[in-house]
Amino acid sequence: MDTYRVVFHIDEGDIARANMVLHNIQNLIDDLGQDEVEVALVANSEGVKALLRSPNVHRRQIRKLAEQGVQFLACGNSLRFLGLSEDDLLEGVRVVPAGVSELTKKQTDGWAYIRP
Amino acid sequence: MDTYRVVFHIDEGDIARANMVLHNIQNLIDDLGQDEVEVALVANSEGVKALLRSPNVHRRQIRKLAEQGVQFLACGNSLRFLGLSEDDLLEGVRVVPAGVSELTKKQTDGWAYIRP
Amino acid sequence: MDTYRVVFHIDEGDIARANMVLHNIQNLIDDLGQDEVEVALVANSEGVKALLRSPNVHRRQIRKLAEQGVQFLACGNSLRFLGLSEDDLLEGVRVVPAGVSELTKKQTDGWAYIRP
Repeated sequence: MDTYRVVFHIDEGDIARANMVLHNIQNLIDDLGQDEVEVALVANSEGVKALLRSPNVHRRQIRKLAEQGVQFLACGNSLRFLGLSEDDLLEGVRVVPAGVSELTKKQTDGWAYIRP
Repeated sequence: MDTYRVVFHIDEGDIARANMVLHNIQNLIDDLGQDEVEVALVANSEGVKALLRSPNVHRRQIRKLAEQGVQFLACGNSLRFLGLSEDDLLEGVRVVPAGVSELTKKQTDGWAYIRP
Repeated sequence: MDTYRVVFHIDEGDIARANMVLHNIQNLIDDLGQDEVEVALVANSEGVKALLRSPNVHRRQIRKLAEQGVQFLACGNSLRFLGLSEDDLLEGVRVVPAGVSELTKKQTDGWAYIRP
């Protein structure tokens, strides 16, 4: 088991915020080592826009992080509210019923929480 | 005892933010089930404005959540700083000495933390 | 050992936000008592600007909190990214390799997390 488990939370739709979150995740992995930390990003509300198939200015960063084992999770409620579906998301992104439930379950299970 | 316990944190005074937080809480309860999750909202700084008696555009949402067992907690320090008192708050809102203490105590007691 | 341990997180560069975080910390200590709570502030991204040697409008607040035992930690990655070094920081501020690692380690070790 990884020594550390961390769930990041994004719920704002601006590119600068998403960019910061993705950089935060890469810095965490670089510092702790890929084998030492399990990372998930939960996106809800407008934050799901960072995981859209198109347009997506973060595509390369996200693919690189996914290759390092980062899980990308989008809130199903938020997608529905925004008129989007799983098909609108980047390949590899998983839809969870409610982003806040995922944040709750992971923390209850011992994950750290970071909200950039 | 509830399976999950979660404290939400709001410290900004805009209506959109409060609306998002309240929707987040309803989504959480709908997804996990009212009997499975205990929820509190701690409001401090400008966030206490979401819990004012008047004007309050969130009145109906808040009452509905309170009926589902959600605790609404306002920071006493922040109220004083803003020249407000317990009498200015919606019925049912409880004042705690310091919002940050409440956030600390609940997490130390095992509650998850979500900051929308 | 202190009864409570809390890590605050700041990653935005505006003065109002830093002011709120520093007030939050003072309120926490005033409410719980200095001997009952251990507090750290982790600053990353633009948040490190709150800890600069000059200009720094928060100097007095920060010194007062440091005298009460608050640890001020700046993200080394963020400093490098902004073209800054340890020499640019207020006396007493410690540089950590990555702010997000510090947030992760402290939470894994049982610290509460507050993101104002």
